Amino acid sequence: MEERTEVASLGEFGLIEHLTKNFETQQASTVVSVGDDAAVIDHFGKQTVITTDLLIEGVHFDLMYTPLKHLGYKSVVVNLSDVYAMNAMPTQITMSIGISNRFSVEALDEFYEGVFAACQKYGVDLIGGDTSASQKGFIISVTAIGEVAPNRFVKRSTAKKGDLICVTGNVGGAFLGLTLLEREKRIYLENPQVQPDLESEDYIVGRLLKPEARKDIIEFFEQQDITPTAMMDVSDGVSSEVLHLCRQSRLGCRIYEEKLPIAPQARQAAFKFGLDPTVCALNGGEDYELIFTMSQDDYDKITLQEEIAVIGYMTDEEEGRKFITKGGNLHDINAQGWNAFQK
Amino acid sequence: MEERTEVASLGEFGLIEHLTKNFETQQASTVVSVGDDAAVIDHFGKQTVITTDLLIEGVHFDLMYTPLKHLGYKSVVVNLSDVYAMNAMPTQITMSIGISNRFSVEALDEFYEGVFAACQKYGVDLIGGDTSASQKGFIISVTAIGEVAPNRFVKRSTAKKGDLICVTGNVGGAFLGLTLLEREKRIYLENPQVQPDLESEDYIVGRLLKPEARKDIIEFFEQQDITPTAMMDVSDGVSSEVLHLCRQSRLGCRIYEEKLPIAPQARQAAFKFGLDPTVCALNGGEDYELIFTMSQDDYDKITLQEEIAVIGYMTDEEEGRKFITKGGNLHDINAQGWNAFQK
Repeated sequence: MEERTEVASLGEFGLIEHLTKNFETQQASTVVSVGDDAAVIDHFGKQTVITTDLLIEGVHFDLMYTPLKHLGYKSVVVNLSDVYAMNAMPTQITMSIGISNRFSVEALDEFYEGVFAACQKYGVDLIGGDTSASQKGFIISVTAIGEVAPNRFVKRSTAKKGDLICVTGNVGGAFLGLTLLEREKRIYLENPQVQPDLESEDYIVGRLLKPEARKDIIEFFEQQDITPTAMMDVSDGVSSEVLHLCRQSRLGCRIYEEKLPIAPQARQAAFKFGLDPTVCALNGGEDYELIFTMSQDDYDKITLQEEIAVIGYMTDEEEGRKFITKGGNLHDINAQGWNAFQK
Repeated sequence: MEERTEVASLGEFGLIEHLTKNFETQQASTVVSVGDDAAVIDHFGKQTVITTDLLIEGVHFDLMYTPLKHLGYKSVVVNLSDVYAMNAMPTQITMSIGISNRFSVEALDEFYEGVFAACQKYGVDLIGGDTSASQKGFIISVTAIGEVAPNRFVKRSTAKKGDLICVTGNVGGAFLGLTLLEREKRIYLENPQVQPDLESEDYIVGRLLKPEARKDIIEFFEQQDITPTAMMDVSDGVSSEVLHLCRQSRLGCRIYEEKLPIAPQARQAAFKFGLDPTVCALNGGEDYELIFTMSQDDYDKITLQEEIAVIGYMTDEEEGRKFITKGGNLHDINAQGWNAFQK
């Protein structure tokens, strides 16, 4: 029988101590960490970046197909992604969780294994948080703090006409992973005897359950002395994010279907499900890639970087926000991005 | 009929814009605020303090007797209190909320009115957050950021033997406010015709529903050049917090019943409910006062400060953690503080 320790047996402070006992700080700027009213960070000569996310079971994740370790990992990564999207380097996180009594200490250990793995991989310190009961389900709130050299941060609103629009890695994969897992869940619920068929779908399932943030790209920018003119991460989908960059920069754009980076595994899965890979790439969320604009003058610096695709360019606002299909047709770009309130 | 705008009609981004449109930043250090991947804060030459809290409907608050405006106010104040408890000054907050579809935009406006009132009063900027659907109830996650001159922060673990133990304001009032409201709620649920009798109980109800953080005390410390040796805020109750200070500083203590600051209104309410005011003062939480230790050498500096009561002193660990009653009896101090996991 699996071990099950009731959370109540540890109490709140015992629980925090239990969950964070093996965690060592990595950042020199971490002065005071878990265990006091607040953490203390030293940030002389740098600007501090801060971002926060609230993740709620049944809204943002489904524990039926999300291993807790992956959930812990992803909760951290999606926040770090927002820090990288400012052209900054994350340094610390806080992690608060609300849990109903169906979660044991062992379950939380698994979750924190993922949290620590992400902290380790990205070199950030867990410096505080809050642990609470919830009436229903698992609630996760993460705040990430980062630093950036003075005025080197990159906003969404500062793209210029003529700038190239670029996307890192590939897009649409996480949405196809979600489609697959939702399908398998339905099949399982109708007939629990059927074993899930995920064998050949590692890639898209991994894109959904264990996304990575693009630290490598921010390091590449530094090495190549590139400062994007505007940037954000792809959490709601390329269409939705392109519209954010356009609206906040008061510009129009042209995006080319043939330029969208789509992984072969995602393309295959789309065909299998009878979906258009382009639509998945435009409207599927949760890829946690970076989308950014940069001056055409910097184009030479990225030609050898296979992880960056130029997908279009910024125009005057009057020219509209248009998508050009492989057949040469022009369509208005609409955000079909994920809206939690209209589910 | 009251106006009711569905949250879904605005969408997530429309909602954030709607909720934050009248909010102006007050802190020079706020470089980038709401509306990007992350906010940017300038902290040259100061140390950054960060703290976070997760508040869940049905666990931390009951909307049956908590007006949304008060809830917004309190959500901010309890976080600022943690920053003050580090001897730091709060400068910014982020606010994330998860809401089920029973909340209208008007309801959220009320909540944010309270949030803004607290920001205004304490001079902090709301710089970001996240707005999400929830499956059930109202979920609030606040992160507060503050600054402190290098190495002037005060931890819990640095009290010294012989230090005086001090409490600000008075304690136990919020617990009696809660007791009253829970009683009225029970009466109402049994017989909805009975009108609540809160007339003469403004003070204790206010202590629960609209607590204030002790910014004034931190300013007083600065003026008087006092640096407490250890400090925390009273959220779980004096007993519980005293034990935290003792354990983390590896010391014992003596606390005197006759020295506990109890408001006359709280004392009256306790007698009315047949409760011992001392027990309420020791074990009642949510007063958001400060409890701190300081060197006896600083005693002269606080004698005229009516908002600070000396309730005891720190001893060697071997002498135990003892409470001395008015009758002169010694008892071990036990934390009866609020444990969310054992409700």
